[in-house]
Amino acid sequence: MQVDQERLQLDIKENAEYGAINAKEGVGRTLLTGSEADRCARTRLLNRMDTAGLATRIDSVGNIVGRWVPESADAAAAPVALGSHLDSVPQGGIFDGPLGVYGALEAVRALQSSDWTLTRPVEVVCFTEEEGGRFGIGTLGSSVATGQRPASAALTRTDDEGITLSERLEEIGFAGNNDLDASDWEAWFELHIEQGSTLETTGASVGIVESITGITNCEVTIEGDSNHAGSTPMFKRADALTAAGEFHLNVEAAAEEISTEHPTAVATVGQQTIEPNARNIIPGRVQMQSDIRDISQETIDRLVERCQLSLDRLERHRPVKTTINRYRNSPPSHMSDRCLSALSKAADAVGVRSLRMHSAAMHDTATVADVTETGLLFAPSRDGISHNPREWTDWEDCAVAVGILAEAVATVAADG
Amino acid sequence: MQVDQERLQLDIKENAEYGAINAKEGVGRTLLTGSEADRCARTRLLNRMDTAGLATRIDSVGNIVGRWVPESADAAAAPVALGSHLDSVPQGGIFDGPLGVYGALEAVRALQSSDWTLTRPVEVVCFTEEEGGRFGIGTLGSSVATGQRPASAALTRTDDEGITLSERLEEIGFAGNNDLDASDWEAWFELHIEQGSTLETTGASVGIVESITGITNCEVTIEGDSNHAGSTPMFKRADALTAAGEFHLNVEAAAEEISTEHPTAVATVGQQTIEPNARNIIPGRVQMQSDIRDISQETIDRLVERCQLSLDRLERHRPVKTTINRYRNSPPSHMSDRCLSALSKAADAVGVRSLRMHSAAMHDTATVADVTETGLLFAPSRDGISHNPREWTDWEDCAVAVGILAEAVATVAADG
Repeated sequence: MQVDQERLQLDIKENAEYGAINAKEGVGRTLLTGSEADRCARTRLLNRMDTAGLATRIDSVGNIVGRWVPESADAAAAPVALGSHLDSVPQGGIFDGPLGVYGALEAVRALQSSDWTLTRPVEVVCFTEEEGGRFGIGTLGSSVATGQRPASAALTRTDDEGITLSERLEEIGFAGNNDLDASDWEAWFELHIEQGSTLETTGASVGIVESITGITNCEVTIEGDSNHAGSTPMFKRADALTAAGEFHLNVEAAAEEISTEHPTAVATVGQQTIEPNARNIIPGRVQMQSDIRDISQETIDRLVERCQLSLDRLERHRPVKTTINRYRNSPPSHMSDRCLSALSKAADAVGVRSLRMHSAAMHDTATVADVTETGLLFAPSRDGISHNPREWTDWEDCAVAVGILAEAVATVAADG
Repeated sequence: MQVDQERLQLDIKENAEYGAINAKEGVGRTLLTGSEADRCARTRLLNRMDTAGLATRIDSVGNIVGRWVPESADAAAAPVALGSHLDSVPQGGIFDGPLGVYGALEAVRALQSSDWTLTRPVEVVCFTEEEGGRFGIGTLGSSVATGQRPASAALTRTDDEGITLSERLEEIGFAGNNDLDASDWEAWFELHIEQGSTLETTGASVGIVESITGITNCEVTIEGDSNHAGSTPMFKRADALTAAGEFHLNVEAAAEEISTEHPTAVATVGQQTIEPNARNIIPGRVQMQSDIRDISQETIDRLVERCQLSLDRLERHRPVKTTINRYRNSPPSHMSDRCLSALSKAADAVGVRSLRMHSAAMHDTATVADVTETGLLFAPSRDGISHNPREWTDWEDCAVAVGILAEAVATVAADG
């Protein structure tokens, strides 16, 4: 398989010029859906697909597809799709997303000049608004392509200026007419940077993701009584902050206990507000956000139950009232055996060390896994840094990963 | 003793017009040291003292003294002083301070028409900046009068606009030349509202304070590692917030344990900041303010030691670094037996129920107790509310308390 590292590098570098920012360190960009930078980046992608002989189309929420039907293929067969996204978080890096989109295009170009006999069409896909940076919901484009959300629900979402996604796509000329249905795909592959340091630490060249963690978020409140810190005796207090301290320790203990058996399970309270938050007043109210993740839904549910039990216990032995609202539950997703095996064999064929792992971050692949077989490949992230201009993956590592991606796609696309 | 309730009521009501605010509920005022409202309130006090035949003087930090030498008294004898302050917190009430100043003046007027034969001069005192509302340090005027702070250190303090106390006093014409030395006083009495609900709950008419709690404030920091809430396994975390939770519970347990023996001991963490305080990031740093109070310095020191022990333990079994900075230590102060007995006898003479209690809030009396014998009398606060326009004490209760104050002052001032 002939991956052209320089061509790939040029694609990613030129793409990085759209929305480029002046970073103190590293190379950064801010590419929000429907911005002028987005229009430029999308237009360039269409041109590059066109140059590679791909037939392009755009769906109703702006997802871009470039289709290649190999001469040996049955045009009516279910295609193998691969890709990622071009949008970024504000002041993000240049690899998160674009490596997967231009890596997919480079994989197709490599396949075109390879001697593989492919029986299925291959589609390069760029999903809209994966980061949720402008319209507040991540993996928005893929959620429409997989039927999890009606196109209308996505198109009517508004940004900070009150402008809808529909209007933004019209503005940049990327409001398409086609529908994209991911369940039509034989399989889906995504190449992405790891956003962690496991590959770097273990010295593996690529990560083959078996599962993407599910995420549950709960909002927890503890109501006590705000009162004078001097004149309220200890036995008359309803201190919401000491009650919260007990909750924190309960959640931590539960996650530590459960993670001895399920090491991917984590629970965090990262955000908390205290009222009135004055030195000489007993805290009357604490509100916090908990974030629970694992590759097993059962484990997530057990952790939520342990949170609930902790609050029940608090209400029984302290004069506080508590609430818990599980406002988000993105279930874990699991990659298919066929795709996993295709990626493993591909890594062996290329002759590099791969590592089976899980992803603790969300990806479009998690959404697509609902409707078809999926595979997710990680390239190393220097120091595990992402969502930051210091995000970096060596060009050699990018090219190696693209070669593996191409081999894996070929395996499935050649599989009558 | 002939206390004129209407005259007292008029004094407090007219004083409340200076700095009056529009409160949704109740009657409020904002009287900051050196403001135009302060000039008016002070000028009115001088006039009322003058009308009552008191010789007025002003010391270098604006403390006001009105001196009455009864005909029967030795002008060279150590005087008995009584009073409080006229300044308020922003949007405070009309009794906190003024009841003690105008109550003292009314007590003197009652003594003037009584048949007590007093052998000592009596001085009505209004201290500057008790609340610390403009220059950031409470009991500022009394700290100079008791020699705890040089006048220069008070006069050079600046307000939010960078103007010194010295300049503010000049502006309103209350920068005096005299020195006031509280250690010259035979004794000091202060009447104040309770700012708690003990009197209301027990049905007692006045509280006779035996001790004013000391206050220690510490700033505590816990440093962990801020990291991704998804990709950081439980066993690799240095979560500053769960460590803080353990600290809160340790402090609470220590205070509950110690307060079974010393019921006036309290410890509170009322204020806390978390960094970066984002839902999906493990907290890397927590900073908090602890407030420890008791009428025994030894108990306060024990509680601080327990805080230190908790942090030491945290550092041993968690990967965190901690610091504790005890930036304030106002020691407890104790009222003299002679003043306590004078107040108790006075309450008996008036025929109302009094209650021995402690004060969980700071007062000028705590400062004066360092240099002479002191007595502190509490009038009931409706619902325990203070520092709020809803602060209220019934006029009858005010008058009863002033009668007791006058009797107690008489006992000491007649005590050749």
